[in-house]
Amino acid sequence: MSQRLTAEALGAFFLFATVVGSGIMAEGLAGGNVAIALLGNTLATGAILFVLITMLGPISGAHMNPAVSLVAASRGELPWGDAAAYIGAQLIFGILGVWAAHLMLDLPLLQLSAKTRTGVGQWAGEFVATFGLVLTVLGTVRHRPAWVPASVALYITAGYWFTSSTSFANPAITVARSLSDTFAGIALADVPMFVASQLLGAAFGAVIARQLFDRR
Amino acid sequence: MSQRLTAEALGAFFLFATVVGSGIMAEGLAGGNVAIALLGNTLATGAILFVLITMLGPISGAHMNPAVSLVAASRGELPWGDAAAYIGAQLIFGILGVWAAHLMLDLPLLQLSAKTRTGVGQWAGEFVATFGLVLTVLGTVRHRPAWVPASVALYITAGYWFTSSTSFANPAITVARSLSDTFAGIALADVPMFVASQLLGAAFGAVIARQLFDRR
Amino acid sequence: MSQRLTAEALGAFFLFATVVGSGIMAEGLAGGNVAIALLGNTLATGAILFVLITMLGPISGAHMNPAVSLVAASRGELPWGDAAAYIGAQLIFGILGVWAAHLMLDLPLLQLSAKTRTGVGQWAGEFVATFGLVLTVLGTVRHRPAWVPASVALYITAGYWFTSSTSFANPAITVARSLSDTFAGIALADVPMFVASQLLGAAFGAVIARQLFDRR
Amino acid sequence: MSQRLTAEALGAFFLFATVVGSGIMAEGLAGGNVAIALLGNTLATGAILFVLITMLGPISGAHMNPAVSLVAASRGELPWGDAAAYIGAQLIFGILGVWAAHLMLDLPLLQLSAKTRTGVGQWAGEFVATFGLVLTVLGTVRHRPAWVPASVALYITAGYWFTSSTSFANPAITVARSLSDTFAGIALADVPMFVASQLLGAAFGAVIARQLFDRR
Repeated sequence: MSQRLTAEALGAFFLFATVVGSGIMAEGLAGGNVAIALLGNTLATGAILFVLITMLGPISGAHMNPAVSLVAASRGELPWGDAAAYIGAQLIFGILGVWAAHLMLDLPLLQLSAKTRTGVGQWAGEFVATFGLVLTVLGTVRHRPAWVPASVALYITAGYWFTSSTSFANPAITVARSLSDTFAGIALADVPMFVASQLLGAAFGAVIARQLFDRR
Repeated sequence: MSQRLTAEALGAFFLFATVVGSGIMAEGLAGGNVAIALLGNTLATGAILFVLITMLGPISGAHMNPAVSLVAASRGELPWGDAAAYIGAQLIFGILGVWAAHLMLDLPLLQLSAKTRTGVGQWAGEFVATFGLVLTVLGTVRHRPAWVPASVALYITAGYWFTSSTSFANPAITVARSLSDTFAGIALADVPMFVASQLLGAAFGAVIARQLFDRR
Repeated sequence: MSQRLTAEALGAFFLFATVVGSGIMAEGLAGGNVAIALLGNTLATGAILFVLITMLGPISGAHMNPAVSLVAASRGELPWGDAAAYIGAQLIFGILGVWAAHLMLDLPLLQLSAKTRTGVGQWAGEFVATFGLVLTVLGTVRHRPAWVPASVALYITAGYWFTSSTSFANPAITVARSLSDTFAGIALADVPMFVASQLLGAAFGAVIARQLFDRR
Repeated sequence: MSQRLTAEALGAFFLFATVVGSGIMAEGLAGGNVAIALLGNTLATGAILFVLITMLGPISGAHMNPAVSLVAASRGELPWGDAAAYIGAQLIFGILGVWAAHLMLDLPLLQLSAKTRTGVGQWAGEFVATFGLVLTVLGTVRHRPAWVPASVALYITAGYWFTSSTSFANPAITVARSLSDTFAGIALADVPMFVASQLLGAAFGAVIARQLFDRR
C-alpha cells in the first residue's frame, strides 16, 4: 500500500505543479493572447499526464483524481478504505505541487484565487468533461490497455478546448487550484458546484460504461 | 446492435461537441489571429479523434462519419441496414453534441450558420480530403490495426491545414455544423455541394484502396 | 511493382500537397507572425508523414524521397531500376500534389518561386538534416520497426525548427517546391545546391549508419 | 564500446543542435511573443528527443545526459569508466552541436551567453525537473520499456513549461548552452548552481525510484 500511496502522491504533485506552473508561465509569456497561453498550458498538461500514467499506472493505477478513485471503488476494483487514502494523498501532495509551482516561478506560496468560474455553462462543461473522462478510462483500460496513457492525456487535451472552464474534471485539482491566484485558479466559493458537477458526471460515466464496455 | 449504436452516438456527440466547442473557444481567445485559433481547433479535434477511435473502435468501429459507414457497407463489412442506423445515430447525436457545445460555452442553443463555404477550390479540397481519409482508414485497418486511431487523428490534423475548408470530410458533421453560427459553421445552402464532394471522394478512395491494399 | 509505384505516387502527392498547402494556409492566416505560420506548417507536415508511412510503408516502404530510395538501392535493398521508377513517381505525383494544393487554396496552378534560399548556413542545414533523416530511417527500421512512422514524422518536425531552410531534406520536394511561389517555395536557381547538399548528407548518413547500426 | 560512444556523441550533437537551433529560429520568427517562441522550441526539443531515444536507445541507452549516466553507474548498470567516457562524448559532441546550430543559422560560431539564470526559484525548478526526469527514466525502463522515448520526450515537453528555466535538467547541455548567446543560453557564472541543483535532484530521484520501482 505504501508504494501505491507514494505513486498517487508523486503523481498528484507533478500533475498539479504542471497544470498550475505551465498556466503561470504561459500567461506570463503570452503577451495577453489567451489562446497562446492555453496552447502552452494544454501541451504541458497533456504531456505530463501521459508520462505520469505510463510511469505510475503499473504501481497504483495513476488515478491522481478522486472521481476516478471513487468510480474504481464503486466497481469493487479498489477497497473503499484504499480509495479514501488515495484521495488524501492526492489532495495533500497535489496542494504541495501547487506550492512548488509557486516556488519555482517566484510567486508567494500561499494564495487564494479570486477567479470566478460559475454558471450553467461551466457546470454543464464539468459534467460532460468528467463523464467523458470516466468513459475514456474504463473503455480503454478494458479493451486497449497499452493506450490508456495516451488516451487520457489526449482526452484532457481536447477537454481544455471544448469547455469554457478548460475541463478541471477532478475534484482534488479543483480544491488545489483554489489556492493559486493565477491563470489556472478558481475562487473557493465556486469549488462546491464544480465538484458536484464532476461527481455527477463521473457517476453517469460509470453507469454508461457498465452498459457499453462490460456487458459483452 | 444497441451497444454499437450507443458507441456511434457517443462518438459523434463528443466529436462534434469538440469540433464546434474548440472552434468557439479558440476563436474567442485568439484575439483575431485565425492561425492561432486554428491551432487550438486542430489540437482538440485530433486529440478527441484519437481517444474516441481507441475507446469505441472495438465496439462499433467508431465511424462517426456516414462516408465511412457507406464505404464499409459497400465492401460488405457492414449490413446496409446497420449503416443506415449508424448514420441516423451519427446525425442525431452529433447535432446534440453541437448543442452541448453551445450550452457549455454560453451561446444560444439553436443557431443557423451564415458562413459561406463554396467554390471549386473548397469542393476539390473536400474531395481530396475524404479520398485520403478513406485510404487512411482502409489502409491502416488492414496492415497496421494498432495504429488506426493515431493515423485517422493525424490525417485530420493535417487536413485542417491543407484544405481551405479545414477538411470537414464527413457528411454528418457538415450538416451539424450548419446549425452553429460560429468558427466551425457552414451555411446550409453550401452543405449539398460539400456532401456531394465528400461522397465522390469517398467512392474514389474505396476504388483505389481495393487496388492498393486488398489485392496482394 | 505497380502497387508499389502507386503507393509512392499517392504518398508524394499527399505529402507535397500538405507541405505546400499548409504553408499557404498558415501564412495566410497568421497575420504576419512567421513563427505561428511555421507551427501550423510543422504540425500538418509531421502529421501527414506519420499517416503516409504507416499506411504505405507496408506496400512500398513509403520513401517519398529520392535520397531515401538511392540509399536503399546503394544498400542492395532496392534494385536500381526500381529506385529510378520510384524517383520518377515521386517527382511527377509530388508536382501534381503541389498543383492540387494551389487548386484547393484558389491560387494559379502554374507558378515559379522567387524565394531565395542560399548560403553556407542553409547548405550546412540541408546536409545535417538529410544526414539525420537517413540515420533515423536506417536506425529505426532495424531496431524499432513499429516506431518508424513516428520517428520520421518527429524528425522532420524538429528539422523544421533547427535549420534556417526548415529542412527540405528531399530532392524531389525541393524541385516541386520551386513550382510554388508561396511560403514553402524555393527559387529554381537555388535548387541544385540544395539537392547536392542533401545527397552528400544522405551519403554520409548511409556510411555512419553502416558502422553504427549494421555491424553488431 | 566505440559504437556506444558514437551513439552518445551523435545523440548529444543532434539534441543540443536542436535545442539551441530551434530556440534561435523560434525567437527570430516570433515577433517578440516569447510564448510562441517557446512553443516552437518545445515542439522541436520533444520531437528530437523521441527520435534519438528510439534510434540510439538500443545501442547506448541514449542518455545524452551526464545526470542519467551517473545514476546508471550508481545503480551498477554502467561501469564508472564507461560513464566517464559517455560524459566526455556528451560534452564534446554536444558543444559541436551548438556550434552546428550557429553555423546553420548564420551566427558566429564562438559565443558566450550573457543570459542571467539564477535564484532560488530556478534552482528549485532544476532540482524538481531532474528529480522527475530520473523517475521517468527509471520507472518507464522497468515497467513500460516500449514507451521510454515518448515518456522522456513528453516529460521534457512539460518541463519546458512548469519551470522558469525551461528545465535544462542536464549538466552537459547546461555547459554547452553557456556557449550560445541566444534564446537558450545561460551565463557561465550561473552554470555551477544549475549543475549542482540538477545533480541533487538526480540523486533524490535515484533514491525514490529504488523505493518505488525496484522493491516489488
